[in-house]
Formats: sequence, structure tokens, C-alpha cells
Amino acid sequence: MIRVSIVGASGYTGRELIKILLKHPLVKIAHLTSETYKGKRISEVHKRLTGFIDKRFEKLNTAEVAQDSDLVFLALPHGKSQKLVAEFLKKGKKVIDLSADYRLKDKSLYKIWYGLEHSYPRLLKRAVYGLPEIYKEEIKKSSLVANPGCYATGVILGVAPLLAHGLGDGNSIIADAKSGVSGAGRRLDIAYHFSECHENLTPYNVGKHRHIPEIEQELSKISKQKVTISFTPHLVPMDRGILATIYLNLKGKISLNKAWSVYRKYYREAPFMRILPKSTFPEVRDIVETNFCEIGLMVDERTNRIIIITAIDNLVRGASGQAIQNMNLMSGFRETEGLL
Amino acid sequence: MIRVSIVGASGYTGRELIKILLKHPLVKIAHLTSETYKGKRISEVHKRLTGFIDKRFEKLNTAEVAQDSDLVFLALPHGKSQKLVAEFLKKGKKVIDLSADYRLKDKSLYKIWYGLEHSYPRLLKRAVYGLPEIYKEEIKKSSLVANPGCYATGVILGVAPLLAHGLGDGNSIIADAKSGVSGAGRRLDIAYHFSECHENLTPYNVGKHRHIPEIEQELSKISKQKVTISFTPHLVPMDRGILATIYLNLKGKISLNKAWSVYRKYYREAPFMRILPKSTFPEVRDIVETNFCEIGLMVDERTNRIIIITAIDNLVRGASGQAIQNMNLMSGFRETEGLL
Amino acid sequence: MIRVSIVGASGYTGRELIKILLKHPLVKIAHLTSETYKGKRISEVHKRLTGFIDKRFEKLNTAEVAQDSDLVFLALPHGKSQKLVAEFLKKGKKVIDLSADYRLKDKSLYKIWYGLEHSYPRLLKRAVYGLPEIYKEEIKKSSLVANPGCYATGVILGVAPLLAHGLGDGNSIIADAKSGVSGAGRRLDIAYHFSECHENLTPYNVGKHRHIPEIEQELSKISKQKVTISFTPHLVPMDRGILATIYLNLKGKISLNKAWSVYRKYYREAPFMRILPKSTFPEVRDIVETNFCEIGLMVDERTNRIIIITAIDNLVRGASGQAIQNMNLMSGFRETEGLL
Amino acid sequence: MIRVSIVGASGYTGRELIKILLKHPLVKIAHLTSETYKGKRISEVHKRLTGFIDKRFEKLNTAEVAQDSDLVFLALPHGKSQKLVAEFLKKGKKVIDLSADYRLKDKSLYKIWYGLEHSYPRLLKRAVYGLPEIYKEEIKKSSLVANPGCYATGVILGVAPLLAHGLGDGNSIIADAKSGVSGAGRRLDIAYHFSECHENLTPYNVGKHRHIPEIEQELSKISKQKVTISFTPHLVPMDRGILATIYLNLKGKISLNKAWSVYRKYYREAPFMRILPKSTFPEVRDIVETNFCEIGLMVDERTNRIIIITAIDNLVRGASGQAIQNMNLMSGFRETEGLL
Repeated sequence: MIRVSIVGASGYTGRELIKILLKHPLVKIAHLTSETYKGKRISEVHKRLTGFIDKRFEKLNTAEVAQDSDLVFLALPHGKSQKLVAEFLKKGKKVIDLSADYRLKDKSLYKIWYGLEHSYPRLLKRAVYGLPEIYKEEIKKSSLVANPGCYATGVILGVAPLLAHGLGDGNSIIADAKSGVSGAGRRLDIAYHFSECHENLTPYNVGKHRHIPEIEQELSKISKQKVTISFTPHLVPMDRGILATIYLNLKGKISLNKAWSVYRKYYREAPFMRILPKSTFPEVRDIVETNFCEIGLMVDERTNRIIIITAIDNLVRGASGQAIQNMNLMSGFRETEGLL
Repeated sequence: MIRVSIVGASGYTGRELIKILLKHPLVKIAHLTSETYKGKRISEVHKRLTGFIDKRFEKLNTAEVAQDSDLVFLALPHGKSQKLVAEFLKKGKKVIDLSADYRLKDKSLYKIWYGLEHSYPRLLKRAVYGLPEIYKEEIKKSSLVANPGCYATGVILGVAPLLAHGLGDGNSIIADAKSGVSGAGRRLDIAYHFSECHENLTPYNVGKHRHIPEIEQELSKISKQKVTISFTPHLVPMDRGILATIYLNLKGKISLNKAWSVYRKYYREAPFMRILPKSTFPEVRDIVETNFCEIGLMVDERTNRIIIITAIDNLVRGASGQAIQNMNLMSGFRETEGLL
Repeated sequence: MIRVSIVGASGYTGRELIKILLKHPLVKIAHLTSETYKGKRISEVHKRLTGFIDKRFEKLNTAEVAQDSDLVFLALPHGKSQKLVAEFLKKGKKVIDLSADYRLKDKSLYKIWYGLEHSYPRLLKRAVYGLPEIYKEEIKKSSLVANPGCYATGVILGVAPLLAHGLGDGNSIIADAKSGVSGAGRRLDIAYHFSECHENLTPYNVGKHRHIPEIEQELSKISKQKVTISFTPHLVPMDRGILATIYLNLKGKISLNKAWSVYRKYYREAPFMRILPKSTFPEVRDIVETNFCEIGLMVDERTNRIIIITAIDNLVRGASGQAIQNMNLMSGFRETEGLL
Repeated sequence: MIRVSIVGASGYTGRELIKILLKHPLVKIAHLTSETYKGKRISEVHKRLTGFIDKRFEKLNTAEVAQDSDLVFLALPHGKSQKLVAEFLKKGKKVIDLSADYRLKDKSLYKIWYGLEHSYPRLLKRAVYGLPEIYKEEIKKSSLVANPGCYATGVILGVAPLLAHGLGDGNSIIADAKSGVSGAGRRLDIAYHFSECHENLTPYNVGKHRHIPEIEQELSKISKQKVTISFTPHLVPMDRGILATIYLNLKGKISLNKAWSVYRKYYREAPFMRILPKSTFPEVRDIVETNFCEIGLMVDERTNRIIIITAIDNLVRGASGQAIQNMNLMSGFRETEGLL
């Protein structure tokens, strides 16, 4: 049994973390903090948690949170985690940071994409990128896990097996991703007004989305050569889910059978990966509210490309569920505890 | 003033044709036929047309339709138009066929993709592919226009200027398209049950969609070399609209300014094309219920790719609106008559 | 041909007014004003109007607007119209006010429900409540029309025939109304964030909605006795449309046939009223984007109640379409001009 | 630990039953039957259960099911349960029937509303109407529970406290209910085609819905006098949830405070009832995927009516969750086991 706290628990990822933790048999929630809602009942802000939790949001008191917790989740906007991570680590606590602050190993990239200096470059090195299917052993031993971006999760998991086996051309990767609106968080913006995004479909941050550098960092590592990708996210009129359709030139003729075996083998010990039967493809509906990542494959013989389609729930596998999966690994629990 | 009839007017494209024709100042509707609903009032089937039209669906009588019409729209399933087209042409009528029957010049391709023999190969040659921005002069003189597929419209219009100027590599084209559910027509299938496709997002016919051959046929013509594309359609939980995100390797360094000027010039006389200001992109909402095609461009300098995003209303520009645009051209009317 | 201007044209009702006016054969748009967006192109704010109009929002200049217009639409928030109406009337202009400022005859009710003093009680008397099916002759002669609230339109049109014939008990009226989200306007509020109102259904202003006093005022007039109603609006996850389900005790036994004939007769000269065949009921989909009001009737013999269901498009019949209908009457045009 | 089976497990209620049972710590699933899908993997039909269950649908073998189960859920269409209930009871099994077959005590009403003879009138008497907040003690002792209809659950729970205390006029009840589309089940019908019910809102079975007699039966019992209601259901473009807005004349002046205390007291030991703070009202979103029923109250002093608004998830509290709640009571488990 461990004690955990969430710093910044009033957003959608905070809500999902609470929901999962409440059903987790080996966890006790200590503190839930929120600057905006401090003093308010959790159930006033996350109304659907009424009856499930009887706590209030608190103002963050780092000392108190550290004292009462074995592990701390940070669900804060980018830039706000840098210092807090350092403080909690110093106090001997394990930390899972859901922001982007510790995802990029290269602080100059962080500067370029997030417009901020990074003040803890030594911790950057120590941080493990929290994709359990790739870094399971490192995560187990780590006290600082940088939880991946939602799009990054869907794209990296989709391409990793192929690049790890040298079967695809890393510089031909085109990832076309579609996300539900909850990915934008609980942010007040006319773009997310119902009447504006219902019956609509919009590309955004075309070629400029901040998940690009973490995808390239990880895919470069896996393929052992520099990878540059094209990535376009789209906003879809649904609440949850990400579908990523990924196109990649194959190196030489590779059959669907061959590709499919590579994926099955690569993920054979991964409890949250579902490689779908040949010529079937994921649908968002089948993975919503779960931590699963589904992958469907198609080899387009006419163009010698492979089309990889992945689906995840942006709030679960793309954020809070994956954070719990990481927590399980860091705490010596079963990887699926509280998630299946 | 011309007299027109619609054969197969009970589907969604039939409904949209009627809606537009009712407001068209130079057209009189003669006959509306439907096998399924013959004898029923139009307003019983297309309830939103109540008060706008007071006619009934009739059983098709080719002689009668021909006698009372100058131009006939065929809005029938693939395979059902072949013979009817021949009959109406023989009787000296102009025909716009909204099915795929006369789109492919190569009857062996028709056999491969639609599983049917084509019995009128000579008419295939005579048919003009009804994309007015490409074939305006041919359409004006033609008596048989094959109205393009909805996806094909969005993709071809998006890529044509680039290929016509030899700026892009035709064999690097990847078109990732997303469509509203009305694209599936009024078909009873559990896949289109509200509870199945709401809060869902599904790829389908991955690498196998029937619009592929017509896109390749037209892009090959435009670029004067054989083009092979990757194409993936997706079903999005909205009623109308298609967004196509198209990726293409540039031949040599080409700036966004340059690409943008090429598009503006290519479409400078096209009243239904909107080339958006640089670094803005189309949204489905802005073109729904109109005949416009919006195009947004982005040059991804990191990968030397161009990303072209187009948006159309699948039922208007992707079907009925474009058919009326063709009718206008074939009849010597203003191209925008009844559509603006 | 008349010249019209819209003061406050950047909201959803402004957009719909522009859309309809652009197709109206007897109207020329003079000025479109907006405090928030002055100087901006219409098509930057209402992107779907790109290609349809090439004007900019202007800062309001009352003198200029008056000089260039025969009739002025005011689409401003409640309280902002009071004075402007007076000014335009003084300059001899016809005015249609889409706010609530001139709907209530009793200025003390205005004070109670809107929290504001009314400074032009004499104009209040002069104003005609703009429900053309009830006040057609008065509207024709009027220079000041107060355009009804969206809910009020649906409820009053639904109950009027019954009360006018003394067949129902005015004090038993319960109106349960459901509206699409566009009814809330283009307002930034977390309640209208897609992720909050999609897959949701919410009652609001239960028993307190500001359309109650205008409904009671008009129904009291029609029934010649004081009417007090229960009214509950709900927010439905769709963009447009209002469905009002109205329950009413019948005075004595009245058959469905009888009730139905009363409705047919009452509205026999009303071009935008559709009394549906017996035992069929309106659906929002059938009237969206039209100025029609559909009515379905059911006599519940078990309880001797009548159930009246009405459907309108909140932005068309509930606001801008009805305003144009009023403009047509005030200008001596055909009532349906530009609307059918 | 008990063993349970589900007869007819391929529909939406079957899916929800399985989902909840899989997380229930005191239950083992024995058999899942389906005529349509026998032989197929559960995860082929309910794709989102992939990875959660590894079983196949079986053809129903009554003897085998009885032998391996302590309790059987019947999730069959109306009429199909009558005989099976008798058989399982005879074999000494506990039965929870989710159809309407055992809800109405009066077999002549069953004939009138369902058009079928009831062949087991003696079992009808033995059956307990499975609304745990009303019949908890009876359910505990029963071996046959008739699980209430979804609308009936929302309406009866909303009105019971008031009628039990004689504060409201039972014959003035008007229940206006709004349901998500999943309430229609997985049925192939053009009315549930996405393009038909998205952006739509439809009343249906106006004054004729089959849940009327069970509501009247139960409310009559509670109020100890014959109750006749008006009831109108509506289809709302969302997947799950029912909101019922109920109007009722108060007997004498009753303050909101008084009414609210009555509700709080009536449900003080009911773990799944949430009486909301005064002047707040339920939203569907807050109870979706839970077994909670939320109630909000408003006393309309102008009309001396009370407005009661209840929200439930039609598939959980309106069907499968309530069935599990009943199973818990029948099996001596904690009422909330597996549901919180």
C-alpha cells in the first residue's frame, strides 16, 4: 500500500487520475491540490465523483504533501513542474510528471518548442520517458518519470517495432492524428465552444505541434539514427480518444504477415497492447476509458508503404492511465493493477 | 430555362439536388423517380422539404422522363447507370451521372475496382470527368458528365496545381481523408447506428477505397506521368463534410510563398475555390452547405514536404452541388447560378 | 427594394440575418456594426460567409446608419436597445429589435425579470410584439417591432389556437422545452465547452427563464384572462433547434379531430405553420435552417390533457428568420419573400 | 462467491452486465448465451471487452446454465422471458428478469400494453418489482425480481417520496423524459442511423409508451390511490442517460425546504440516491456510467407546482446496474458491492 498525492488535480487528467486511483487496491490518496479551486469539494468541480470521494482541494503545501506521500503526480501546465519535481525528489519522493517539462533530453529543444529555459538539466538526464512498453526496466528503478504526451504515445507505440527491426525508413514517417476535444483540457476558448466544434473538423498546429520533438527523440533512439517526421493533429467532434494513422516507406519488400509477426513479438509481454487481426483496424470506441493501445496494420503493396493505425484514450493511455501504469512499475506492483 | 429530372431521387444526394434545384432560377423540375418510394410524396421521405415541393416520386419511365427533360441527373448505385446513360444520350438528352459508372476511362480498372463489366466502352471515352476547375471547356461542350467521387474531388483539387507545375513528386502522395457519416448514404448498417458511430472514429477501406483509381487517373493526366497514391478514409462523428490532409514531397526547395502563388494563379478564375491566407487551414464548418472547396497550405521545411488541406461538403461539392455546377456549364448558364 | 442595416451583427443571430438578407431579392444591406469586431471583415468572424459578402464590421454611427437605411435590425444584448430604438424611430426609421427591451408591455415586469428600468414606456406601448401569425395587421402598420424570444415563439404558437377558442385551461399549461446550444449565443462559458455539454443534457433556469413573462403576457391576451405557466428549458447536445412539449388540461371532452381542425383553421393563412397529420410529431431535423414552425397534437384521453409539440429553428424562426418575416410585412413585401 | 449466467448477453444491457460483473469481487461468470452470436467470442461482438474476458457466446442450454449458476439474468426481448423464468425457478435458481414480462401484476394490463397473454400469473404475484429503494426487504427474500424499465426507474424514484407523504396530487403528474439513443438497443432501424438522429430531437410514443403502466402501478401502490400520468419520451442525440422532468401539483402550500427534507429523509439509507442541494439540478453527464440517481427539486410558487428532475444512466441504473444492485441484495452482499 502506498500513499500518493496529485498536484494540480482539477483538470481532466486530474479527474481521471482520481477515478482510477479510487479503484486501485494498493493506493491511498493523501492530498489533492488546486490553485484555482482550493477549499472546494472535489465533487463540486468533478461532479461525477460525487459519492466516490469526500475530500477537498487544498492549496499546495510542498512539505506536507511530501511528508504524507510516497509518490506524487504533477498534473500542471508546462513550465510549472520544473522546480516542484526537484523539490519532491530532494525530499526522497517518487515523482511522475504529466507535463512536458522532463520529456526532452535536450534542453535546447525544450527552449525552442516551449519557449522556456530549463533550470534542472541534471534532472533531465535522470528522468525516464514513461512509455512502459519501451522503458519498463528503467521505469522500475526510476524515481522520476516524465509521462509522455498523448499524441506521442499513440505514434511511438505504433512505429517502434518497425524501426527497432530496421524495416522502415524513419525519415518517411507521416503521422496524421485525430483527437477528441478533451485533449484541449478544461480551457475556456471559443474554439472549444460546442457550437464551434460540433459538426466541425479542424486541423491545428499543422507541422508545429509540441509533441513532435519527443516523438523524434524517442524514434531516433529506437532506430539508432536521426528521425524527422511530419505530424498533423486534428480536432474531432467527440470527447475522448486519439486515432493516429501513420504512413511509412518499407525498406525492401515486407509482407503483412512478416510485419504483423514483428509487432506481435515486440509487444508479446505488454498487457495493454492489442495487435489486431490482419486487415482489421482500431476504432476509438473500443478503447475509450481503458488503458489499451490498439494497433492495426496494412501493407500497401502498390506503394510499398505500411499503414499503421493506433488508437488510445487520450486521457487514459495518453495521460492518467499510463501514469498509473508507471506508478505500478515504480512501486513493484503488477503492471495492470487497478487498470484492468 | 431548362427542364431537368432526377432518376433515383430518394437518397441524400437526391435530396440535396432537389434542394438546390428548387432555388435555381433557370430550372424547372420535371420528374423525380425512386424505385423504393414510388407513389410517395417527396415530403414524406425528405421531410425537411415539406412546403418547398409538392410532388411525388414516380416509377422510372425512361421515355417520359426523356420527353419532358433537357437534362437528366442519375443518382443511382454503381452499375445501375451504365445502360440508362446510353438510353438518355440516344434520345438526345444531356446526362450527369453521379455514380462511378462513367468516371474511369479504362474499363479494366472499372472491372477490378467495381467487379463489373462495362458494356459501353465507347461512351466511356465520350464522358467528361466533371471537375469544372480542370475540365471547364470540355464540360461546356459535353452531353455526358461523370460527376466525381466526393473524396476524389477533395484530393484532386488539392494536388492539381502542384502537379501541373511539376513541383511535387506524384508518387509520394499520401491522402488521409475524414468524412461525415452522410457519406455512407441512407444505408441501414449497424456501423452507422448512432450508438456505434457517435463518440467513435473509424478508418475503413484502408488502402482499398474505390475513389483511388479515379484520383490516380486524373492526377496522372495532370502530371503527365503515372501517379500511385496511398489513401485512407475515416468516418468522423459528424453528418457532413470531408477534410483531406495530403502529404507530398516537394521537388527541390519551394517556399510557401511560391506554392501559395501557384495555387492562387491556378484557381484565379474558379469561383468556388478559396485558397486560404498563408498558415490558416480549412475547417469543415466553414464550407458545410456550400459548393466551396477551401485549401490551406503548409511547407514543412524540416522534411521538405508540402501539407495540403482541403475541405468540402461531401453532399454539395462532393456530389449534388458539383453536379449543378456542371449543369450550369453544360447549359450555358453562369457557373455559380443557384449555388451562391 | 429597401436598404437595411444590422446593429450588433457579429453574433449568431447577426450571422443568420446576414445569410438570409443576402438571398433576399428586395433588400440591400447598408451597414453592419459590431463593437467587438469593428474594422474586421465579416468573413473573418463569420467564416462561412466568405465569398458571399465583402464588407467590414463598422463602429456604430447612428446618424450614418439612419441616413443609409430604411429599416434597422438591432441584435444587441438586453438593455442596449432601449435608447437606440428611440433614436432610430425619431429619425423616421423602421426598427426591428431582437432583444427583449420592447417585448413586455408592463415596465414593472421588465424591471423584475431583467433588473433594469425602462426609460421609454411610451415606446413600449407603440411596439408590436412580432409574432406574425398573431399580429400580422399590426406589424404591417408598425414602425417598431419587438421580435419575440425563441422559446416564447415555440410555446405561444403552440398554445394560441386552443386558448383563442377557449378549449384549454390556461393555468394548467406546462411547457417543457429543449434547445440546441446555439441558443446560448457565442458566449465564452465553461458550460458550453464541448467536453461539458456533449453527451450531456441539462435543465437550466428552472422556473425562472426570462421568456416566461412574455409568454404569459401574450397568452393572457389571447385567452382574455390571466395565464400563469410552468416553463423548464433544457440544453441538448445539438447546435440548433427548439422542441417544446406542452401539456394542458382540456375544458371538457375534446377529440383529437376537433383540436386538429381548430389548429388547421387558425393557421390556414399562415405560410410558415405546418400542422402535422394526426399522430405524427415534429422532429427538430425537419425544420432546421427554415422559418417553419411544426406542430403535432395528441389528446391523452386517459388524463383529458392535450399534448402539443412544436419545433422551430431557434436562430431562424426563433430569431432572425422571424425578424425577416416581420420586415417583409412592414415593407409591404410577400410574407415569405427571401425565406422560401 | 456466487456463479451467475446471462441469457441474451449480446445487447447493450448484456454488455453492461458483463462489464460490471467482471469487476465484482464476489461473482464468477458461468455462461453467456446469445442466439444470434452463439459460437462467437464475446470480444468480437462487444469489442471494448477485448482483454477483459476470454469467453464465447453459447447457445442456451437451460439445464447446463441452471446447473452451473446460482443466479440467472435474463436480458431478452419482452415475451421471451415468461417461460424461461418459470424453468429456472423450478430448478431452484434465483432469477433477475430485465424484460417487462414480470413487471405488471395485472396480466390484463400486460395483454393491453404488450399484446401478449401471460401464461404464468402465479409467478407474476411472486415476482418483486426490483426497485431497491422501495422494495429492499422484499428483494432480499425474493428469488424472482422483475427489473424495472429505465424510464420507470427515473420517474418512480423522483415522485415516490412526495406521494408517500401525501404531499402531491397523483393525478396531476406529467413526466417529460429525454433519453440517449442507446435506450433503443442495438436495433437496425433508419430512425437510429447517425445522420437521422444526430442534430435532431424527436418525441416518440407520445402518451403510449409501455413504461406507463408500471409507473402507474407503483405510484398507485405508494400513494394508496389510483394514479394516472401523462408521459412523453424524447430521443436526444447522445448515447446514454435519461433526464426526467416531472411536474406535479402540490396539495397545499409546501416550501422547498420542506419538500427537500422529505426527500433527504426518504432516501437517507439509499446509497445510490443523491438529493442535490436546493436550486441545483442534475445533469446527465454527472451520473453516466454510474448507478446513481440524482434528484433536483424546485417549488414553483407562482403555480404551486413542484418540479422534480431526475437523472440516471439508462443502461446502468435503468437496467444492468440496478440488476446488480438487486443481485447484491438477493445474495446477502453489500448493496453497493461492485458498483462503487
